[in-house]
Amino acid sequence: MRFLAEVAQAGAATGRHVVKRIGIIGTGIMGADHARLLTDAVSGACVGGVFDPDAERAGGVAARSGGARVFADPYALIGDDGIDAVLIASSDATHEEYVLACVAAGKPVLCEKPLAPTTEGCARILEAEAAHGSRLVTVGFMRRFDPGYTDLKAVLDGGEVGIPLMIHHVHRNPAAVPGIPGSALITNSAVHELDITRWLFGEEITEVAVHTPRPSGRAGGTRDPQLLILTTESGVLADVEIFVNARYGYEVRCELVAEEGTVTLDAPPPTSLRRGGLHARELPADWRPRFAEAYRLELQDWIDGTGRGATAWDGFAATYVAQACVAALESGERHVVGMPSIPRLYRG
Amino acid sequence: MRFLAEVAQAGAATGRHVVKRIGIIGTGIMGADHARLLTDAVSGACVGGVFDPDAERAGGVAARSGGARVFADPYALIGDDGIDAVLIASSDATHEEYVLACVAAGKPVLCEKPLAPTTEGCARILEAEAAHGSRLVTVGFMRRFDPGYTDLKAVLDGGEVGIPLMIHHVHRNPAAVPGIPGSALITNSAVHELDITRWLFGEEITEVAVHTPRPSGRAGGTRDPQLLILTTESGVLADVEIFVNARYGYEVRCELVAEEGTVTLDAPPPTSLRRGGLHARELPADWRPRFAEAYRLELQDWIDGTGRGATAWDGFAATYVAQACVAALESGERHVVGMPSIPRLYRG
Amino acid sequence: MRFLAEVAQAGAATGRHVVKRIGIIGTGIMGADHARLLTDAVSGACVGGVFDPDAERAGGVAARSGGARVFADPYALIGDDGIDAVLIASSDATHEEYVLACVAAGKPVLCEKPLAPTTEGCARILEAEAAHGSRLVTVGFMRRFDPGYTDLKAVLDGGEVGIPLMIHHVHRNPAAVPGIPGSALITNSAVHELDITRWLFGEEITEVAVHTPRPSGRAGGTRDPQLLILTTESGVLADVEIFVNARYGYEVRCELVAEEGTVTLDAPPPTSLRRGGLHARELPADWRPRFAEAYRLELQDWIDGTGRGATAWDGFAATYVAQACVAALESGERHVVGMPSIPRLYRG
Amino acid sequence: MRFLAEVAQAGAATGRHVVKRIGIIGTGIMGADHARLLTDAVSGACVGGVFDPDAERAGGVAARSGGARVFADPYALIGDDGIDAVLIASSDATHEEYVLACVAAGKPVLCEKPLAPTTEGCARILEAEAAHGSRLVTVGFMRRFDPGYTDLKAVLDGGEVGIPLMIHHVHRNPAAVPGIPGSALITNSAVHELDITRWLFGEEITEVAVHTPRPSGRAGGTRDPQLLILTTESGVLADVEIFVNARYGYEVRCELVAEEGTVTLDAPPPTSLRRGGLHARELPADWRPRFAEAYRLELQDWIDGTGRGATAWDGFAATYVAQACVAALESGERHVVGMPSIPRLYRG
Repeated sequence: MRFLAEVAQAGAATGRHVVKRIGIIGTGIMGADHARLLTDAVSGACVGGVFDPDAERAGGVAARSGGARVFADPYALIGDDGIDAVLIASSDATHEEYVLACVAAGKPVLCEKPLAPTTEGCARILEAEAAHGSRLVTVGFMRRFDPGYTDLKAVLDGGEVGIPLMIHHVHRNPAAVPGIPGSALITNSAVHELDITRWLFGEEITEVAVHTPRPSGRAGGTRDPQLLILTTESGVLADVEIFVNARYGYEVRCELVAEEGTVTLDAPPPTSLRRGGLHARELPADWRPRFAEAYRLELQDWIDGTGRGATAWDGFAATYVAQACVAALESGERHVVGMPSIPRLYRG
Repeated sequence: MRFLAEVAQAGAATGRHVVKRIGIIGTGIMGADHARLLTDAVSGACVGGVFDPDAERAGGVAARSGGARVFADPYALIGDDGIDAVLIASSDATHEEYVLACVAAGKPVLCEKPLAPTTEGCARILEAEAAHGSRLVTVGFMRRFDPGYTDLKAVLDGGEVGIPLMIHHVHRNPAAVPGIPGSALITNSAVHELDITRWLFGEEITEVAVHTPRPSGRAGGTRDPQLLILTTESGVLADVEIFVNARYGYEVRCELVAEEGTVTLDAPPPTSLRRGGLHARELPADWRPRFAEAYRLELQDWIDGTGRGATAWDGFAATYVAQACVAALESGERHVVGMPSIPRLYRG
Repeated sequence: MRFLAEVAQAGAATGRHVVKRIGIIGTGIMGADHARLLTDAVSGACVGGVFDPDAERAGGVAARSGGARVFADPYALIGDDGIDAVLIASSDATHEEYVLACVAAGKPVLCEKPLAPTTEGCARILEAEAAHGSRLVTVGFMRRFDPGYTDLKAVLDGGEVGIPLMIHHVHRNPAAVPGIPGSALITNSAVHELDITRWLFGEEITEVAVHTPRPSGRAGGTRDPQLLILTTESGVLADVEIFVNARYGYEVRCELVAEEGTVTLDAPPPTSLRRGGLHARELPADWRPRFAEAYRLELQDWIDGTGRGATAWDGFAATYVAQACVAALESGERHVVGMPSIPRLYRG
Repeated sequence: MRFLAEVAQAGAATGRHVVKRIGIIGTGIMGADHARLLTDAVSGACVGGVFDPDAERAGGVAARSGGARVFADPYALIGDDGIDAVLIASSDATHEEYVLACVAAGKPVLCEKPLAPTTEGCARILEAEAAHGSRLVTVGFMRRFDPGYTDLKAVLDGGEVGIPLMIHHVHRNPAAVPGIPGSALITNSAVHELDITRWLFGEEITEVAVHTPRPSGRAGGTRDPQLLILTTESGVLADVEIFVNARYGYEVRCELVAEEGTVTLDAPPPTSLRRGGLHARELPADWRPRFAEAYRLELQDWIDGTGRGATAWDGFAATYVAQACVAALESGERHVVGMPSIPRLYRG
C-alpha cells in the first residue's frame, strides 16, 4: 500500500529523499498534535496545507508547521496538486464526507476514529473504496502502534503463553462532561478496546453484553462505569471496564489470559518517587502522553505506506460492534452482533 | 546553534521543508543504526553519504539509506558540498582526526563517545573549536535524551524532592570480552554515568575512589564488578556499580536521594508475563533496545540544531574524570580530579 | 539449645495463662496444617485430641502436636471434657453432622468451608444454633484475616477512595482434576470471592450471571475458566475470573474501583530475582503459602474468641449465592439470588 | 464471643503443653511490644514478670499481659523461680549488667541490640558465657527472622544466583534527633546491616570505609546520610546507605549481586492505591510494622529454643565492626577491622 507514485524530491545531492506533503483538515487538539509530529518527528513528511473552520486556529498551526498553506475550503485542500495525502481530524460528523472526497480524488487519507458515527456512513465509505478498487483509507486506531500493545501481540503470536482464553481491559479517564449519554462511553472510549480486541485475536466479536453498577456520583447521571462483555468467533471472552469519571488519572491496562500463562500491559513510566509516605509512579492526566509514541509510529507507518494501520473495514466493524454494545446497554440483554461478511478488498 | 545556512529544498508546494544531508563515517553496528534512524525515523534528515574501511559494509548501509553515496575517503566525505553535517561512528582511535577535520571544514559533527580516548586528544579538539570560534561538536552521550533520565532531571530541577545528596547507579552488561583491563569498565561503560552525573547536577566531579570485590569467575581475570565513588563540587556523593559480566541481561538503573525524597529510574518495559511460577518483566540483552528512544531523540535534536547534546567540553570532562577513576582503581586511593577550568566557549 | 528441662505449668506461677485444648476432626492436609499452627504458632492453644478415619494419619499428627490424644470416634472427641473446642477439617459431606454435634454439646467449633455443601444442610445448622441461643460456629473463610484483604477493607472503610462501585477479582490455581463439573469451580473455589465480596461491602449479593469463554484445552472438558458477575444490594458490580487450570501458579488478586480511586491487592513476595533475562517475583504453587498468615491469624482470633470470623449465617449465605451462580452457569441467564432475611442471632 | 468461662490448665488434660514464663526488663516501646507478642501471638509463652524504673509503666504492661507480676528490682526478677527466661529491653547502657546477671543465674536471656555499647562490655559477656560453659545469650537482631531476609538467604544458599560478589543496602528513617553524632548512625542503625552482612555470607567483615556527602539540611549538623563500604573475608563488597532523616518514611532494602543474577529485597506491602495522579504503595513511618513479623518469629524461635538467633559472639562482632566504621568515619580512611578469633563456644 505504498501510496505515493510521484513524490517531492528533496536533497539535491542524494536525489533520493522524498517528502510527502500532508493536508490536515481540522486543527483542534488532535490535528495540531499531528501537525507537530509530521513537522518535527516523522521522516519523509511535511505539512503541505491545513483547513479549519476557525481560520485563525488554522493559521497558527500552519505557522508552526514550517509555513504550510492555509486553505479556505477543505475540498480545495483535498483536490490540490500540492497535497499528496490527507489527515482528517475534524469533528466526527464531518468525517464521512471528507473521506469520500479523498477517495474520489484518489488520495490516501488517515481519518481519526470514528470512521463515521453510523454504520450506514461507514458502509458508504466501504462502497466508495470498493468502487475505487484499492485501499486509500486508514482509520486512526493508534493503539495498534503502541509499543505495549505490539509487545503483547508479539508474545501472543509467538506462542509464549499458548491459546488465548480471556482478556481483561481497564480504560479510565479522570473526568467527562457530566450527564453525557451512557452510549458515549462505548462509542467514544470503549471503541478502542473493541478495535484492539479484533486486532489482537484477528477475528470478529460475535456477542456482547453490558453490565452496570450504580453510577458514580461524579458522573452527573451518566451510566458510568460500565462493564462490557465480548465474545469472539473462536470463543475468547473479553471484558472491558470503561470508567470516564475515574478521577485519579488516565489509565489503560489489560491482562491477556491464555492456556499457559498471562500477559499484562500496564506501561509503567520510567521513574518512581518516594515521598510523603508513598512509593509512587505518576499517572498521566489524559491519553496524549500515554499514547504519544503510538501516534508518532502510526503517522510514520502511514507516511511509509506499509499499511499496518486499521482499514476502512476495521472502522466499519468497530462502529458496528459499538452499536451492538449500545443496544445491549439499553436492553440489559446479551446481543448477537451479526457482523456482515468482510468485502473482498479487505481480505488476506 | 541551528547549524545549516543553506539547506536542500523539499516539497515544491510548501517551499519550506529542509532536509539535512548527513555523512556517516563508520558503518558498524552503531553507524548502521544511526543511518536507519536518520532515514526512517527522524524529521528533516537523510543520509547523504557513508564511509567505512569495509566498502562492502558501507555499500549495504548506503543501499538501505535510500541510495546514499559511498565515499572511498572519509576526508572527501567531510569536505563534500553535498554533505551538510557529519556523524562519526568509527573506531575510538580515529575520532580525534575526523572531528578535527570536520571543525576545519566548519561542519557540525556528532561524534560517538569517547570524543577521544585521551585527555590530550580531547584538548586538541577544544583548541580547534576555540580557534573556530563557535561550537560545532556534539558528543554522543545519548542518555541525556533518554525519557527516563530527562524525567529524573525534571523532577530534581522542579524541586519535588529537594536538594540532592546522593545517587546510586547500577550499570550492568551480560558479558564482556574475557580478560579486558579493569580500566575498560570505566572508560567504556561507566563513562556514561560520569557524564550523567555531571549533567544531572550541573557541576563537576571533584574526587573519586574505586572499590572492588573479588572478581566474578566469569570475567576471565578482569576486575569486574567495580564500585566507583564520586563526589561533586557541591558535595553530592555518587556511587556507580559497573558490572560487565552480569550474565542475566543489560540493565541501567539509578536512585537519586534528596532531602525530601528519592527518585528511581528503572524503566520497566510495558508488559509483564506470568508463566512457569514467575511474574516477570523481560530485560534486554544489550543497550540498544534500552536506549533506542534516546538515540532517536538525540539525532532529532542534533538535526534540529537545538544544542541540548553534550559539547566537546563535556566529552573532554568525561574522559578527564574517567582517567582519574582509572588512577584510583590502580592505586586503591581516593583521587582529587583537578579539572581544568571551563573554556569561555562552553560557559553559560 | 532447648533451654528448659523442667517446664512451668500454665497458670501455675502466674495463675493467669490459659490454654484451650482443641480437638481436630480430620487430619488431612488442612487438619495437619491447623494442628501445626495451634501447636507451634498460636498463643493460648494446644491440640487436645484428634480424630481421623485413617488412624495412622491421626496418630502422626497427634505425635507432632505434643502428644495429643487420638480418638477412635469423632463424637467421643466432641463430647470429651478434655476438649474445649473443635476444629473440623474433614470431608465436606461430613461437616454438617459434626457441626450439629458440637452445637448440641455447646462447644465452639471452627468448620472449614463449606459449612455444608447444600443450603438445606446450612439451614439446619442455623436452626440448631438458633435453638442453642448463642453463636458457637465459625466458618473457615480465612481470607477475612489475610493482611492484604484487611488492608484493602481498612482503606475502603477509611474513606480513602470514596464510595465503591466495582471490584475485579482474579482467582487462579495451576491445575485441577480433569473433567470436574463446572459447578465445582464455583462451590469450591469462587466461593471465597463470594464470601469476601459480602464481607468487604457488608451487604448481600442480589443478582448473578456467569460468562464462559471456550474452555482451556488443559481442563479435560471442564468449563474452565469462568467469569462470574455479581451485583450487591447497593449496586456494586463484582466480577470474578475463576480459572483452576491456569498452569503458571496460584494467584489471588483483586482491584476495588471506587469514586475517588482504586485499591489493588496483589500481595507481592518480599524478594525479586534478576536472572536469565527476567526480573521476576515468584508465585506460589498453591494457596497455603499465600494464605499462611491468614490461617494463623484466623486460628489466633478463634482462640481469642473475638468473633471476627465468618458466622454460620455467612456460611449459609456463601452456599446460597454459590447455588445461584451454578444455576446461572447452567442456564446462561442472569439469576436473582433471593437471599432469605438474616436471622436475629446474626444481626448487628 | 469469648467462649471459655472455665479454662483448662495447660498440661492438665494433655500433660504435654508447656508455657515458659518470661521476665521482661524494660517496658518502653520495645518491651511493651514484646510483652504483647508473648501474650497474644507466641505459642508456649507468657509474661511472668516485668520490671521498669517507671513502675507505673511496668504496671500497665503487666496488666495488659494477663496480670504478670511487677518486680521492684530487676535482679529479683532475674533470680525469681517463677521466671524461666529473661528479655532485656532496657536502655543500652544497662544491657551488660543484666545479661551478666542472667548468665550468673543460668537463665536464657534475649537482649535487645546492642549486646553492650562497647566491645569491652561485650567481651565481658563472652567471658562469662565461656565460664558458664554453654550459650544462654541471644541478641535481638530480629532481621535474621524477617521473611524477606530469610528468603534472600535461601535463594543465595540454594545456589540460584551463584557466588555472591556485592550487596547494596539502603536503610532510611524519616527523622532523627537533630545534631546527634554521626557515629550514632552506625552504632544504632547501620549495625543491623553489619549483622545481616555477617549472617548472610557466614563470614567476618575485614575492612571498612565510610564516605559522606554534604549533610542533609534536615539533620541539624549530623553527618547524615553516610555510605559505608564493607569487605568480607571472601571479598564480598557491601555498601550501606544509612540516612536517618530521609523524611519520606521508613525503608530497608537491599540487592545482592552474584555471578549469575541478583536478588532484591524490598518487601512491598500487599496493596497499592491509585489516587490523585499516582499509583502508590504506602511506606511505614517506622520500623515496627516493617519488622512486626520478624519480631514475632524471633520470639517464637527463642521460646522454642532452636537457637537460630544471634549469639553473644554475633553481638560482640557487630559492636566490634561498628567501632571500626566509626573510626573510618572519623579518619576518612579505610580501616582494617582486625576481628579477634571466634571463641570455641560459638564455633560450628
